[in-house]
Amino acid sequence: MQVAVVTFDGFNELDSFVASALVNRCRSDGLEAFITTPTPVVTSMNGVEVRGQRPLEFVADADVVLIGSGVKAREVVADDRMLSRLPVDPSRQLVGAQCSGALVLARLGLLDGMPACTDSKSRPFVEACGVTVLDVPFHAEGNIATAGGCLASQYLATWVISRTVGEDAARGVLDYVAPVGENQETVERALRAVRVGTRAAASR
Amino acid sequence: MQVAVVTFDGFNELDSFVASALVNRCRSDGLEAFITTPTPVVTSMNGVEVRGQRPLEFVADADVVLIGSGVKAREVVADDRMLSRLPVDPSRQLVGAQCSGALVLARLGLLDGMPACTDSKSRPFVEACGVTVLDVPFHAEGNIATAGGCLASQYLATWVISRTVGEDAARGVLDYVAPVGENQETVERALRAVRVGTRAAASR
Repeated sequence: MQVAVVTFDGFNELDSFVASALVNRCRSDGLEAFITTPTPVVTSMNGVEVRGQRPLEFVADADVVLIGSGVKAREVVADDRMLSRLPVDPSRQLVGAQCSGALVLARLGLLDGMPACTDSKSRPFVEACGVTVLDVPFHAEGNIATAGGCLASQYLATWVISRTVGEDAARGVLDYVAPVGENQETVERALRAVRVGTRAAASR
Repeated sequence: MQVAVVTFDGFNELDSFVASALVNRCRSDGLEAFITTPTPVVTSMNGVEVRGQRPLEFVADADVVLIGSGVKAREVVADDRMLSRLPVDPSRQLVGAQCSGALVLARLGLLDGMPACTDSKSRPFVEACGVTVLDVPFHAEGNIATAGGCLASQYLATWVISRTVGEDAARGVLDYVAPVGENQETVERALRAVRVGTRAAASR
């Protein structure tokens, strides 16, 4: 199973790399993440140049699509050509968004009828799309999830790993990346955030 | 003030990017981090190619040097030429290490007489250098700090920000990057880890 971590110019390193690094600890389980970019090289909000591992066309083939966040999200969603290159399909893919990535999902019409998480700066723009923003770090309904606050990218990764290779694998990853001595609380915090934030499709 | 985030080939994205992204939120306070690499381009443990923002020579000029972690740390410390390119000096610089970065500090003789934090995989190699490894996420004495467990990179960044631009700035950064709704606990957890893990030079 392959995860496209969609990473635009001006991206926030925390959002793309926390998710991809956690997911990539499941390579031996057959789950792998790739930094997926609209141009061969993208530059982060802090000036770090990163070469994409997959072109944006990979989005169509991936099993999971995570939309990262960055300082240019409003330019992304104003660009119809860019949006047309994001043919995400929650009927056959898991789709997640981190912080301002929720704006992209909103513009793609994927948040119709469900609330979302985002960061405080993106919030008014997501709300302007008619989407209710929640004061929680993670919310998922069916195959769509959103996370708010850079470090909630752990929760988005936890959701992806739990939904694809299982909760035990997610526990193992969280235990490994946790600060030494804070293993159990790190595991439980993430699993709780995902559990509390997941609404069964039937209850919508 | 400038922070060199030393990033070797095979680096762990969490270790280099969590620290640099947090520090870079203090740019308006005059604190800035740069991915600092021994070659123009380095490739992460997950195959992501990143262009260094500064060459390794920047280490000599930086006010703060953070040694990142990765899957090739043992090759780094076996390479005397590479070690000679790391003229860190805790008498005039803050020096920190994340996970296997402790191996580098140990080989540079900077952990003589102080214990250190590292990850479980690096632990036996750090111990083989005669360094006591602690079961905590963060430990600092004077101008030297070590952190263990990928996500403890938050604590290393918290220490750097607190020591350079102050605790209020660290609070502001942690509050911003925290998962939405977990702001206060995220701030307090990091400040507590740094406070508990900091031993005054006088008590050594």
